[in-house]
Amino acid sequence: MSDILARLDRVLEQRKQAAADTSYVSSLYRAGLDTMLKKLGEEATETVIAAKNGGTAEIVGEVADLWFHSLVMLSFLGLSSATVLNELNRRFGQSGLDEKASRKKDRE
Amino acid sequence: MSDILARLDRVLEQRKQAAADTSYVSSLYRAGLDTMLKKLGEEATETVIAAKNGGTAEIVGEVADLWFHSLVMLSFLGLSSATVLNELNRRFGQSGLDEKASRKKDRE
Amino acid sequence: MSDILARLDRVLEQRKQAAADTSYVSSLYRAGLDTMLKKLGEEATETVIAAKNGGTAEIVGEVADLWFHSLVMLSFLGLSSATVLNELNRRFGQSGLDEKASRKKDRE
Amino acid sequence: MSDILARLDRVLEQRKQAAADTSYVSSLYRAGLDTMLKKLGEEATETVIAAKNGGTAEIVGEVADLWFHSLVMLSFLGLSSATVLNELNRRFGQSGLDEKASRKKDRE
Repeated sequence: MSDILARLDRVLEQRKQAAADTSYVSSLYRAGLDTMLKKLGEEATETVIAAKNGGTAEIVGEVADLWFHSLVMLSFLGLSSATVLNELNRRFGQSGLDEKASRKKDRE
Repeated sequence: MSDILARLDRVLEQRKQAAADTSYVSSLYRAGLDTMLKKLGEEATETVIAAKNGGTAEIVGEVADLWFHSLVMLSFLGLSSATVLNELNRRFGQSGLDEKASRKKDRE
Repeated sequence: MSDILARLDRVLEQRKQAAADTSYVSSLYRAGLDTMLKKLGEEATETVIAAKNGGTAEIVGEVADLWFHSLVMLSFLGLSSATVLNELNRRFGQSGLDEKASRKKDRE
Repeated sequence: MSDILARLDRVLEQRKQAAADTSYVSSLYRAGLDTMLKKLGEEATETVIAAKNGGTAEIVGEVADLWFHSLVMLSFLGLSSATVLNELNRRFGQSGLDEKASRKKDRE
């Protein structure tokens, strides 16, 4: 199931090359980074609202939107979901969530 | 690699049960939904700032934070990364990104 | 100059009553709280992006959008700019900014 | 009452000059723009959560936080509340809210 992220990486990369494309994603690539970041901010706010409303389908849909627009931004910047999964793996793959706790405290 | 999401689901579920735990995640579970949503909003803003600053490690780290806090919220609500991956698969697994384009236009 | 806030309060209150109105504000009133909050979140993200871009007119325009949508939300909830100005006055009117410092530390 | 914004402009300007100050605001000036923008994003999210929770004091407090951190950012950038009030006056001072409607449609 989680291969969907790798699949999305590939499809997004193809779209990035197809500049004349009329799809939603191609319109984001043409609009550029600021537009992608506005979408990411919008989807984060919509996730918060959905979580307060409490409807499961709405919550899942908004988190999917949030992650999807994260992937579009990463693709635009030459990155991919793999870099994020690697980072999560580095933090949590071995020692569970303890490293996170100390890391967050360091930063705050 | 993407099994890290399934692994995180399991570890988060364990942490949710271990109420007396002193970890960062356990403190989030005790603090409740609003605190999780504040963190999610913070990480979205930090992702935007990181993307404008342009440093790859900072960007990847912030998206990892954003996805991680999404997972904590989902876990708190009895959901998991699988629900989000299923939704992304439903949208993009077959026909690529065309369905997304029409769907977004419907909503806006 | 700052009477513009009181003026906006009055105009927004009139618009709230004029349900059949076709203006942007009336469309927000009809759409309801979640739509207003999405706009508020959008304008906050756009303010962050504008500040990173550094253009004065863009920054001022986005903060104006952010404050304006705050006022629409307050009006929708039966509040006004006066409640916010009163709160700022309560915090900072006498002793400058010292109270703020202690207050923020209490909350964090 | 709305003179509180002009008063805050002046106090913030004084604080900006007093680099050795130990107040909360001085710590924001030393931390710089990114930290201010993170606070602005946090306060926007907290405003959304407060509005969904529905408590008047919480809502007013969060909007006050949001506007206050807007003022700190403006001050840091050499701007002030007057620029925002001027912009709101330019948009809404004469013709009410009609100009806003057309302006928003132009941008979207």
